[in-house]
Amino acid sequence: MAKKKLNLGMIGYGFMGRAHSNAFRKVGNFFPLEHEIVLKAACARSEDKARAFAANWGYESIETDWRKLVDRPDIDVIDIASPNDTHREIALAAAAAGKMILCEKPLGRNSAESEEMVAAVEKAGVANMVWYNYRRVPAVTMAKQLVEEGRLGRIFHYRAKFLQDWTINADLPQGGAALWRLDVNVAGSGVTGDLLAHCIDTAIWLNGPIVEVSAMTETFVKERMHNLTGKVEKVGIDDASLFLARFANGSLATFEATRYARGHKALYTLEMNGEKASVFWDLHDLHRLQYFDHADEGRLRGWKSIHITDGDQPYMKNWWVPGLQIGYEHSFVHQVADFVAGLESGQPAGPNFRDALQTDYVTDAVLASARERSWKTVKQG
Amino acid sequence: MAKKKLNLGMIGYGFMGRAHSNAFRKVGNFFPLEHEIVLKAACARSEDKARAFAANWGYESIETDWRKLVDRPDIDVIDIASPNDTHREIALAAAAAGKMILCEKPLGRNSAESEEMVAAVEKAGVANMVWYNYRRVPAVTMAKQLVEEGRLGRIFHYRAKFLQDWTINADLPQGGAALWRLDVNVAGSGVTGDLLAHCIDTAIWLNGPIVEVSAMTETFVKERMHNLTGKVEKVGIDDASLFLARFANGSLATFEATRYARGHKALYTLEMNGEKASVFWDLHDLHRLQYFDHADEGRLRGWKSIHITDGDQPYMKNWWVPGLQIGYEHSFVHQVADFVAGLESGQPAGPNFRDALQTDYVTDAVLASARERSWKTVKQG
Amino acid sequence: MAKKKLNLGMIGYGFMGRAHSNAFRKVGNFFPLEHEIVLKAACARSEDKARAFAANWGYESIETDWRKLVDRPDIDVIDIASPNDTHREIALAAAAAGKMILCEKPLGRNSAESEEMVAAVEKAGVANMVWYNYRRVPAVTMAKQLVEEGRLGRIFHYRAKFLQDWTINADLPQGGAALWRLDVNVAGSGVTGDLLAHCIDTAIWLNGPIVEVSAMTETFVKERMHNLTGKVEKVGIDDASLFLARFANGSLATFEATRYARGHKALYTLEMNGEKASVFWDLHDLHRLQYFDHADEGRLRGWKSIHITDGDQPYMKNWWVPGLQIGYEHSFVHQVADFVAGLESGQPAGPNFRDALQTDYVTDAVLASARERSWKTVKQG
Amino acid sequence: MAKKKLNLGMIGYGFMGRAHSNAFRKVGNFFPLEHEIVLKAACARSEDKARAFAANWGYESIETDWRKLVDRPDIDVIDIASPNDTHREIALAAAAAGKMILCEKPLGRNSAESEEMVAAVEKAGVANMVWYNYRRVPAVTMAKQLVEEGRLGRIFHYRAKFLQDWTINADLPQGGAALWRLDVNVAGSGVTGDLLAHCIDTAIWLNGPIVEVSAMTETFVKERMHNLTGKVEKVGIDDASLFLARFANGSLATFEATRYARGHKALYTLEMNGEKASVFWDLHDLHRLQYFDHADEGRLRGWKSIHITDGDQPYMKNWWVPGLQIGYEHSFVHQVADFVAGLESGQPAGPNFRDALQTDYVTDAVLASARERSWKTVKQG
Repeated sequence: MAKKKLNLGMIGYGFMGRAHSNAFRKVGNFFPLEHEIVLKAACARSEDKARAFAANWGYESIETDWRKLVDRPDIDVIDIASPNDTHREIALAAAAAGKMILCEKPLGRNSAESEEMVAAVEKAGVANMVWYNYRRVPAVTMAKQLVEEGRLGRIFHYRAKFLQDWTINADLPQGGAALWRLDVNVAGSGVTGDLLAHCIDTAIWLNGPIVEVSAMTETFVKERMHNLTGKVEKVGIDDASLFLARFANGSLATFEATRYARGHKALYTLEMNGEKASVFWDLHDLHRLQYFDHADEGRLRGWKSIHITDGDQPYMKNWWVPGLQIGYEHSFVHQVADFVAGLESGQPAGPNFRDALQTDYVTDAVLASARERSWKTVKQG
Repeated sequence: MAKKKLNLGMIGYGFMGRAHSNAFRKVGNFFPLEHEIVLKAACARSEDKARAFAANWGYESIETDWRKLVDRPDIDVIDIASPNDTHREIALAAAAAGKMILCEKPLGRNSAESEEMVAAVEKAGVANMVWYNYRRVPAVTMAKQLVEEGRLGRIFHYRAKFLQDWTINADLPQGGAALWRLDVNVAGSGVTGDLLAHCIDTAIWLNGPIVEVSAMTETFVKERMHNLTGKVEKVGIDDASLFLARFANGSLATFEATRYARGHKALYTLEMNGEKASVFWDLHDLHRLQYFDHADEGRLRGWKSIHITDGDQPYMKNWWVPGLQIGYEHSFVHQVADFVAGLESGQPAGPNFRDALQTDYVTDAVLASARERSWKTVKQG
Repeated sequence: MAKKKLNLGMIGYGFMGRAHSNAFRKVGNFFPLEHEIVLKAACARSEDKARAFAANWGYESIETDWRKLVDRPDIDVIDIASPNDTHREIALAAAAAGKMILCEKPLGRNSAESEEMVAAVEKAGVANMVWYNYRRVPAVTMAKQLVEEGRLGRIFHYRAKFLQDWTINADLPQGGAALWRLDVNVAGSGVTGDLLAHCIDTAIWLNGPIVEVSAMTETFVKERMHNLTGKVEKVGIDDASLFLARFANGSLATFEATRYARGHKALYTLEMNGEKASVFWDLHDLHRLQYFDHADEGRLRGWKSIHITDGDQPYMKNWWVPGLQIGYEHSFVHQVADFVAGLESGQPAGPNFRDALQTDYVTDAVLASARERSWKTVKQG
Repeated sequence: MAKKKLNLGMIGYGFMGRAHSNAFRKVGNFFPLEHEIVLKAACARSEDKARAFAANWGYESIETDWRKLVDRPDIDVIDIASPNDTHREIALAAAAAGKMILCEKPLGRNSAESEEMVAAVEKAGVANMVWYNYRRVPAVTMAKQLVEEGRLGRIFHYRAKFLQDWTINADLPQGGAALWRLDVNVAGSGVTGDLLAHCIDTAIWLNGPIVEVSAMTETFVKERMHNLTGKVEKVGIDDASLFLARFANGSLATFEATRYARGHKALYTLEMNGEKASVFWDLHDLHRLQYFDHADEGRLRGWKSIHITDGDQPYMKNWWVPGLQIGYEHSFVHQVADFVAGLESGQPAGPNFRDALQTDYVTDAVLASARERSWKTVKQG
C-alpha cells in the first residue's frame, strides 16, 4: 500500500536543521505511518549552504528566499529551524499560505511575538507544533504516564535545572552564524529562552500551570566582541537565570539554567516529589528514569534506576532490543512520528503553538521578575 | 604522659545527646590530644532518663536541673544538646559561670536570641562552638581545601538542598519529646532552622557571605494533633523553605529544604561551580567527593568520584585503611578533636557562636522574605 | 561533486538486517565520504518478507535466493545478516563472485567454518569485515586510544562479562525465526558464540592475544519445545559460559556470559587494570568511559566518569553538540563509515575475517575446555 | 541492673587490634546486652607497644607473652588479632585453658592448621568465632535475609571480587610489622587467604557449599627486599588469585582477588542472580544494597539502590536516624553484639571455627588447582 506524501520545506541548516532532517529521514523506517515525509526543499539565504545542506540530507530542491518556499504549492509543511528572530515572520506567512508549521523553540522571542503566531495558525486552522523535543525522551514520556496514572499522588515539589558551561571563556565572541544565541536581538533572551524554556515546557506538561515566580538573572561576562560589527559590545543576554515558582496544584519549585556551570555540558535534570512516589530524570543519561515508590515494602524501598529500553516502555518497541539504548536524536523522531500520527488520527499531538505560548508567558514573567526584583503572576493563556 | 582532663557536662539525651556522647568517648582513641574528655555528668529533667543515659554512656553522675550542672565547679565544658528553646537560657548561665560551651545548632531560635548568646560568651571570654558538624565530613573539608587553594577560581554558582520525607504522613502529631521539631514554639522554625541552617553554615564557610535572598515557604499539613495538649492545633513551622541568593563574591544560588521530598531520607547535597573547577557532595554517600577539573586534558575531562578514605585526605589518617569508609558519626568526632586541638593551640576551631549568628541572620532574612514576598538584604554581623 | 556508488545487497531481515540498514542509510548524512551506499537489493527466502523489508528501508529490488543476489553484476557488497548456519556458504559464494563482504558475527559456527571463509576472501582478494560493532562505541574506541598511547602501562588484569536474562523462562521454545539463537544447529553454540565472542573480539583488540583458557559452561534448562518440530527436544546450546584466561602480555582475565542473570538486559562490561591507569566501560551506559589515572595528585585520585559526547572524542564531531548522547545503533554507522573510508584510503578497517577467526579460536578453546575440564591453549592464526 | 562482665584479653595491636578494640568499646553504648565487655589486658611482644596500645584503648593491664595472658584466670575471652602464623598456637593454648576465642581470619595459614584449631575448641567446648566481619555489614545481612526468604528463587550465578592496588609498586618491601601480609611464611598465602577468604566466607553463607574450583594465581613482582633479612628475596605469596566455581546448588561462579587493580582500594563486590531476583553489593559504598525484583511491574523494573539506614533494616535501629550512614568499623561492633547475644541466648553466632575451616578447604583447593592447573573438588567438613 503506497504511503501518502507529506511534502516538507525546511528553513535553516544549523544544529536544529540537522536534527530535524535526521528525524524526517528516519521516522518511516521505524514507525508504521500512513504518510511518508518527502524532503522537498531546503532553504537558506546562502545558495552554497542551501545546496550543500540539500545534498547532504537528500532534499530535492533548494530556495534562498523563505518567502518563495512558503509560497510553493508543492509544500505541505514548513519547518522553521532558523534563528529565533525569524520565527514570527515566517510563521505568519506560512500560516497565511495555509501550510502546516513545525517551529523550533522558543516560539517567538517573547510572548508578544508568540501571541501573533498563535493567532495566525489558529485563524488559518493549520496543524502546528513546537519542537520541545524532551517530552518525547522515553523516560520523560514514562514519567508523564506515571503522573497521569496517579502514581505520584499529590505533588509537593518540582525542581529542574539545565546546566551548561560553554560560554565561560570571556574571549568567546557573540553573534553571527554559530553564536546567534549570544546576541539578544536575535535570540530574544539568553538561557531563559534557550534552556529554561525546555524546563518550563516539560514542567507544565507534567505538573500543570505555573502561577507565580520570583527570579534572578545574571550576565557574568558583560562585554564580548560582536561577530557582526567587529566591535566589543555589551552583552544583552542573561547568562544564568534562576527562579522560585508555585504551581497551580500547590507544589513549590526551583528552576535554574546557566551556561556557567563548569563540568556540565547539557545537564537537564528534573525531579517531582509526590505524596506516594517520586521521579528523577537526567539528560546526561537520558535512557534511564529514577523512580521511588513509597508503596514498596519498607526495608526494600529505594530509588530504582529503570533502563528504558524495553518494548513496554514508551516508543521502545519501535527500536532495538532490551538493553540497547537510544540517544538524543530519537526524541525528534518520536516527535515527527507523533505529529504525523496526530494528523492521521485527528488528535493533534502537542505541544502546539498555544502550549508554547504558555511557556513564553512564564519566561516573560521570569525576566520581568528578575528585572523588577519582585514576584510576578504568570499570565494564563 | 598523663592527659589533662576536660570535664564535660551534657544537657540532653536525645539523638544529639547520643551523637555527641559517642564522639566524646571515641575521640581519644583516634586523635592524639593532650586532653582527655571526662564524661562528668549528664543532665535531664527526668531522673530516670538521666540515669539511663548516664549508665549507657558512662557519665559519672547525673543532674536533673541544668542550673545545678552549670554551677558545678567540677565541670569545664557544658554541651547543650537539648531542644532549641533552651539554648539561650542555658548558654547565658553557662557563660556567666565561666564554662566553655558547645551548643547544638541552630544557636538560638532566631537571631535576637543568638545575639544575646554571642554577647554572653564574648563577654565571658569562654571557648564556644556550635555543632554544625557537616563542615567536618572529610569530603566537605576537602572541598574547603580546594576552594582555599584557588582551584575553583571565580565562583559562579552555589546550590544546596536538604531533602527529607518523614513528615508527609498527616497523622503524625506535633510536639513532645520526639517531635519537638514540629512545634514552632520549641523549634523556632521548621526546616529553615533545622535543615537550611546546615546548608547555610557550610555555604558561608565555603563561599563567603550571603548578601540577599528571595524565599518562599510552605506548610503542607496545616493542622496536627499536639502531643502536649492532645488537641488538633495549627502547625506553626515551615515544612518547606526555598530561596534564591546572591553571595558577596557575585555568585548565584538556590537553596531548598523540605520534609516532603518522597524518597529522600537526609539528602543534603551541595555543589559549587567555579571558573576552573566544580565540586559536588551528597550526604547519602558522604565518603565521596565529586570533582570536575577543567585543567584536565580535553577529551579526558569528567567528574571524578573521589573515595575519601586515604591518609592524605582530611582526618582519614586517623581512621582505617584506604577503601574503608567512615560514617555520619565521625563528623562529630572530628569536631571534638578540632575543638580540643584548638584549645591546645590557642587557635580556636569554628564555627563559634558568632559564626552561627551569621547563619541565623540568613535564616531570619529567609523567613522574612517568605512572609513579605520580597527580596531581603542579609544583616552582616 | 558526485559521490561514487557502492551497491549493496543485503541478506537477512531480522534485528541485524535492521541495524545494518539503518547504518547504511545514515552514514552519508553524518560522515563525509567519497562513496554513497546504494541499497540495491534485499534478499529473504520469503518474498513477502523481502518485499516488506525492502519497502521499509528503501531497497530498490528484492531477491528470494541469495545465490541470485550474489551473482548479480550490479552488486558490489554483500552483507550477510542471516543466521549463523548460512554465513559460510554465502561467504564462499560471494567471495568467488568477487564481492566485498560484510558478515555478521560470529564469522562461522566454529573455527573450521571460519577458516574456509578466511581462505575464500583472501584468495579472492575482496574487502571483508565482520560486524563486531562494539569496537566502535566511542567510549570503547577511546579506551583503545588510551591503551595505544601507553597510558595504562603494563596490564595486570582484564575482565569482561555480557549478562542477559531473556531465556530464564523455561516455557520459551527454541528454534525458528526469532529464536534460532537457541538452536545449536543454527547458532553453533549458545552464549559463547553470541555474547562471549563480542567480549573476546574487544579484548584481543585492546589487550592482544589470549593464549590459554579454563572454562565452564552450563545449560540450565535442559529441554525446550522446538518451534520447527513441535516437540520437546534437548537444548544443545550453552546458557552460560565462564572462563579464566591468560593473555600473551601476562595479564590475567575472567570472562563470563549468560542469559540467566536476572536484572541485566545486555550488560556488557569490560575493565582493564594497568600499572598506570585503569578503564571501565558498560554497554548499559555506553556513552560513558570510566577512567582512573594514578598520575593524578594523590588525594584527588578517583574514577572519572567521562561523558563521551565532545568533538575531540572518537566519532563525536560528526554527531550533535557536547552533552547529547548517541546510542547503540551509532556503532554500526561508525563501522560502515570506517569500512568505506578504508576502501578509499587503501587502509582496510578491521576486524576482517582473519581477525574474527582468531576470536573463533578462543571460543573453540573455551567450549573444548568446558567439555574436557582442562586448560586449553588457544590456536594462534 | 548491673551488667555481667566479660573480661577480654587482646593479642595484637595492629589494624585489626584497633578495629576489634573499637568494637568492644562501642558495643555497649548501642546494643542492649546483659554483659559488658571489660578490656582487661592487651598483649604485644614489645612492652612499649603493649603499653601504648593499652593506654590508647583503655585496657587495664598489659602482657608481653601471650602464654601468660592465656593463663590468666581473670580472662574470659582471648581475641587473636596477631599475624596468621600465630593463630594456631595461641588458639590451641587458649582452648586448652578453657577460654572463649575470637580469631582474626583466616583461621590458620591452611586447612591443616585450621583442623587442629577446630578440634581444640570443639574438644574444649569453648565459644569460638572468626572475624569474617563482612557478614555483618547491614546490606550484606539483608541480602542474607532476602535469600532465606526465598526471594531470589533458584540461584544461577554468583560473582565476587576483592580488588586492591597497594602493592603495585615494585619497591615496596616484604615482611616485618606492617608488611607481614607479603611474607608467605607469616601469611600462609597472598590474596587467597587475605581477600578471597572474605569472599568465600560470605559466598558459602549466602549460597551454600562450593563443590569444585578451577583457579589461576600470579605473582607479578617476583622479588622484593625482605624487611627482616634486608635482602632481596623471592616473593612467595600470590598477588592475584582467580577461580571458577560450582556451588552445590548448581550455580556457577567467578571469584577474583588481586592487589594489582589500579584504582580500587578495597573493592569487594558480590552479586547473586536468581530466577526471581538479584542482589549486588559493593564495599566501597557499603551502606547500599542493589536489588532487582522481577516481580515488579514490567515497565517499572530496575535495580533499586537501597540506602540501608532505616530502623527496619538489619542492625540499623541501634544507630542513628534514616539517611545517616554507618561505616566499615560498625560491622565489627555488630559481630561483637551478636557474639555476646549468642552467649546469652545459647544460640551461638557464626562464623565459628568450623565454618572458617570450610573456607580454608576452598582456599586450599584454589591454591592446589592453580598449582596443578586442574579442577579440584573441595573437601566438605
